[in-house]
Amino acid sequence: MVNQRVDIGWQSSKSDSSGVSNSGESSKESSRCSTPVLDADRTDRLRDKMKRRIESGDRWFSLEFFPPRTASGAVNLISRFDRMGSGGPLFIDVTWHPAGDPGSDKETSSMMIASTAVNYCGLESVLHLTCCNQTKEKISAHLNKAKRLGLKNIMALRGDPIGEDWVEEDGGFNYATDLVKHIRCEFDDYFDICVAGYPTGHPEAESYEDDLRHLKEKVDAGAHFIVTQLFFRAETFLKFVKDCRAIGITCPILPGIFPIQGYHSLRQLVKLSKLEVPEEIMQVIEPIKDNDAAIRNYGIHQAVEMCKVLLASGEVPGLHFYTLNREVATMEVLRQLGLWAEDPRRPLPWAVSAHPKRKVEDVRPIFWASRPKSYIYRTQDWDDFPNGRWGNSSSPAFGELTDYYLFYLKSKSPKEALLQMWGEELMSEESVYEVFTNYITSQTNRNGHKVMCLPWNDDPLAPETNLLKDELEKVNRRGVLTINSQPNINGKPSSDPIVGWGPAGGYVFQKAYLEFFTSSENVTALLQVLKKYEPRVNYHIVNVQGRNTTNAHDMQPNAVTWGIFPGREIIQPTVVDPVSFMYWKDEAFALWIEQWAKLYEDESPSRMIIQYIHDNYFLVNLVDNDFPLDSCLWQVIEDMFTLLDSPQETQEE
Amino acid sequence: MVNQRVDIGWQSSKSDSSGVSNSGESSKESSRCSTPVLDADRTDRLRDKMKRRIESGDRWFSLEFFPPRTASGAVNLISRFDRMGSGGPLFIDVTWHPAGDPGSDKETSSMMIASTAVNYCGLESVLHLTCCNQTKEKISAHLNKAKRLGLKNIMALRGDPIGEDWVEEDGGFNYATDLVKHIRCEFDDYFDICVAGYPTGHPEAESYEDDLRHLKEKVDAGAHFIVTQLFFRAETFLKFVKDCRAIGITCPILPGIFPIQGYHSLRQLVKLSKLEVPEEIMQVIEPIKDNDAAIRNYGIHQAVEMCKVLLASGEVPGLHFYTLNREVATMEVLRQLGLWAEDPRRPLPWAVSAHPKRKVEDVRPIFWASRPKSYIYRTQDWDDFPNGRWGNSSSPAFGELTDYYLFYLKSKSPKEALLQMWGEELMSEESVYEVFTNYITSQTNRNGHKVMCLPWNDDPLAPETNLLKDELEKVNRRGVLTINSQPNINGKPSSDPIVGWGPAGGYVFQKAYLEFFTSSENVTALLQVLKKYEPRVNYHIVNVQGRNTTNAHDMQPNAVTWGIFPGREIIQPTVVDPVSFMYWKDEAFALWIEQWAKLYEDESPSRMIIQYIHDNYFLVNLVDNDFPLDSCLWQVIEDMFTLLDSPQETQEE
Repeated sequence: MVNQRVDIGWQSSKSDSSGVSNSGESSKESSRCSTPVLDADRTDRLRDKMKRRIESGDRWFSLEFFPPRTASGAVNLISRFDRMGSGGPLFIDVTWHPAGDPGSDKETSSMMIASTAVNYCGLESVLHLTCCNQTKEKISAHLNKAKRLGLKNIMALRGDPIGEDWVEEDGGFNYATDLVKHIRCEFDDYFDICVAGYPTGHPEAESYEDDLRHLKEKVDAGAHFIVTQLFFRAETFLKFVKDCRAIGITCPILPGIFPIQGYHSLRQLVKLSKLEVPEEIMQVIEPIKDNDAAIRNYGIHQAVEMCKVLLASGEVPGLHFYTLNREVATMEVLRQLGLWAEDPRRPLPWAVSAHPKRKVEDVRPIFWASRPKSYIYRTQDWDDFPNGRWGNSSSPAFGELTDYYLFYLKSKSPKEALLQMWGEELMSEESVYEVFTNYITSQTNRNGHKVMCLPWNDDPLAPETNLLKDELEKVNRRGVLTINSQPNINGKPSSDPIVGWGPAGGYVFQKAYLEFFTSSENVTALLQVLKKYEPRVNYHIVNVQGRNTTNAHDMQPNAVTWGIFPGREIIQPTVVDPVSFMYWKDEAFALWIEQWAKLYEDESPSRMIIQYIHDNYFLVNLVDNDFPLDSCLWQVIEDMFTLLDSPQETQEE
Repeated sequence: MVNQRVDIGWQSSKSDSSGVSNSGESSKESSRCSTPVLDADRTDRLRDKMKRRIESGDRWFSLEFFPPRTASGAVNLISRFDRMGSGGPLFIDVTWHPAGDPGSDKETSSMMIASTAVNYCGLESVLHLTCCNQTKEKISAHLNKAKRLGLKNIMALRGDPIGEDWVEEDGGFNYATDLVKHIRCEFDDYFDICVAGYPTGHPEAESYEDDLRHLKEKVDAGAHFIVTQLFFRAETFLKFVKDCRAIGITCPILPGIFPIQGYHSLRQLVKLSKLEVPEEIMQVIEPIKDNDAAIRNYGIHQAVEMCKVLLASGEVPGLHFYTLNREVATMEVLRQLGLWAEDPRRPLPWAVSAHPKRKVEDVRPIFWASRPKSYIYRTQDWDDFPNGRWGNSSSPAFGELTDYYLFYLKSKSPKEALLQMWGEELMSEESVYEVFTNYITSQTNRNGHKVMCLPWNDDPLAPETNLLKDELEKVNRRGVLTINSQPNINGKPSSDPIVGWGPAGGYVFQKAYLEFFTSSENVTALLQVLKKYEPRVNYHIVNVQGRNTTNAHDMQPNAVTWGIFPGREIIQPTVVDPVSFMYWKDEAFALWIEQWAKLYEDESPSRMIIQYIHDNYFLVNLVDNDFPLDSCLWQVIEDMFTLLDSPQETQEE
């Protein structure tokens, strides 16, 4: 009986390593730095993520966008990616418009938008690609570029023939099937491939059945899943799925959902896609066609009801939304369906990039905490990314940040708004202190404008920083101009809504960190004061010329955020790295000029004040190593002011 | 004035990195796993360590040993290394006896003893080497072997000519100078070189002055420091140093200290070294020559008094002791001088090896915690060592441990003592439980013998394990045969005398760990019970055939000891690694047979009991991931017993 029960035990065993001890692998393998990645989603391919969701019964959604027309449209779209990304789409996709130079390096091209979504917003992304009227070389060039940029998924489409006189070319790309075959032939299994399905048949197909056969060909050629054209009745889609399954199409089929958002956009779409809007919908819409709000509400209602039927059918693993680059309607539909999963938990304290090269990355310098896109941009040429530890101070080889107008690094606010927030006219350094203080307190300034951003922080204060609000206000008022900070944390659960990150059941820790600009007079007093805090406080103090005063031991990095999780090694996602700090200070000082001083006329007093600060202030960072105790950094600043307030003592040294 | 004060600040700057941001190094450098080593002593060369000590004014001592004659003498010497190593010698040195095959692989050879000191005891070691009557090829072969084994320091000696008819050879090795030149010529700067100085002149030298000139030649040829022959009066040495300095010898000169330990050993030494014992010493010794204790006491007193004069002179940076392979006298002298620095602080929780290849090593599997020499042996062929993190579960390629009689892996106790401790005759499995229990409680067994070791633990319980004594006793009594455990620790100071390690000002943490053998019946109940503790407890359960039952996520390593220190990255020196566990279980099971069963006759009941346990028991390890809470592992065991005690419940599954 004993043995029998033991055997039951073995059947539940998750792995059998009986062969391990006979392994004769080379000892070269012995030193291993590769990271156990935090969440499988970072390494899995889109098809595997779908498979896992289908198996577990977790529904998903995905979002379709089209490329913007203007650079400022691109900036807006990218921040929409960030906002809509927080709801947890399984992927987003970006359409391809052959007439719009979609494969170029322009910031509005399909290629660049999809690349930005992957690299800077951390979104699993699908790039559309059409093949009609394109040479094989051109298509391969697009695909190679996409691969280089970290894109892993292609929506393979025929595209609309340009001109009326289009005829099939022998050996050319006449159908999406040709493109699918080409991708699989040239790139083997590298790309996940999506193809389009037409629930009512493609408008140009000879028949619905003929179109289904074409779809089967596309899947057989190597496509991994299907996204359908929009439709207005759940039964249209459900019949389509049934017909697909009947002819042997087994891959996931995602319904394309189009929440009606306005009378005119609906008409235009219907015209382009040659679809018919059902009578029952037209009857509702026609009477309210001039009432935008009513139409939007109806659109949401109609989409929600249809999606409910789809989800209840058991045939729909996920919903694909045609967003028309808007967020309100889609988000509302998803919220009502309970699919909008704004999960406060983060795999790491910083936003993870989705580029496959970066999948092991789990350590970054803290300096770019508020400028993650800049960090990603400046490290995009790295072949490997630090994982496990940052390592010692050899050259981190940061790329130059010469073009301060890279669209994804730009402020989301226009110049006028910035001037309102930061002052049309500065009177003195104190005016600058006031801007910082107003940013911290979220109070309106003397002209009645709230300061919502600073050159170093394009968003309002992080909830975590809010914990430090009172102290931050006090020191900013006196010219300790803070641009980055974190409180100390001594073992909070990883599920903590404000400071938590990483897998469940863990504990997160932080050392208190404070980074600020301040005058040389303050720095002199600070250096005096810091002697009392050795070795508890580590500091780096640098001016724009780059002279660095520090007590860092051997210029080693200092881990300031780490987490302990069940069954894993320690994860330490942020460090204060002395070498990287020198690259950061170039960027941090440059932002004074590029984002602030340049708002004003040359030679204007306002501009000269900012220029003076840029030229004469110091960038300081402080770490309190004694994380279990209350942070002493506020006391350090307090001591600095006390020393400054008692002039006789400052003479001592 | 402000600027002036800032300039003062800059002068105290420890590093100026103004050039950093212009660095154009390759991005290949960006992913860096090299470890910031915990203490400079692990990377520095002996000459650098001396330099630092001299600059800081910290005195040091070093210890000279000769190779043992027998294998059991080697075992004793190695444990003496461990004990005397705890006093903090700057280095030890091992003499070279040309007649005794000193460069061979025999466990008693000078080469192997020095290698063991470096690799297994973590001691900075100097290997003596003599050149007289040796071919250049032979000497190069010795040096190459020494380098391969991780030895970094050579004491270059002429050695005694063999036979009376020795004459200088042209181009041969006639003097130590030739050897020094050869080492520098063939190995460039790889070895640190020590040479011998004779405070009263070499007995064969033409004159004291002539001998000093020879010494100068040796130093000029590339020696880094001098150790002197023994002497009996401080003034002898101080005059010698003065004379050395006068002719331009500037390197460190260490006095050779010989605490008189017995009348006969003194006479023999004096005869060999052709030294004269001063009259005032002979007058004291002669009358007490038959009283060993009195002579030893005098020897200690005389050495202490002489060393005090030497140290007070300011000319002596460190003392070199001729130990004659004994420890009491030397340790007593060092204690009285205040130089014996038994420092409870450890750089890492485990004993660090001094092989230069291992200098970055800072992670090991916990399984070998009580058998570090076995771990070092089995990983000696690794080219790199894990640092920062253990990494994911690719093959760690452990070497085979086929020769269970490798002298540094042997029990220090002879067979008779083991039988007294573990039982001349075992009656049942319960007799074995009793042995484990007696080991835990340090109580004498029924035959009046204390159980001081087990096959898996050659030393008494670690102080840390003592913290768990009561619980361990309880479970061992019932057949949960523990071989490794650690309590959970939630942020104790790194200076804690029991669980502390690493640099000052840090905090250390542990997850509770428990490893034991137990019967298959117990394992069945345990697996039942463990379901309640998901995901808090990670487990691995394996039998001798290697079937592994685990809930480890993706077979990732679990960090169970880590430390947070000022200005550094996280250090996590011990992990539970699933893959390594399979190598460890082979060793752990084999120890039942090799160290225990084989004490008994073939086919004897005692042997069959151990064999039964070996064949049928399971090796289990448990980690409680929730380190801030009281360990639940005792409750897990308790629950297992409760389940076993209620038979109707065990049928449930």
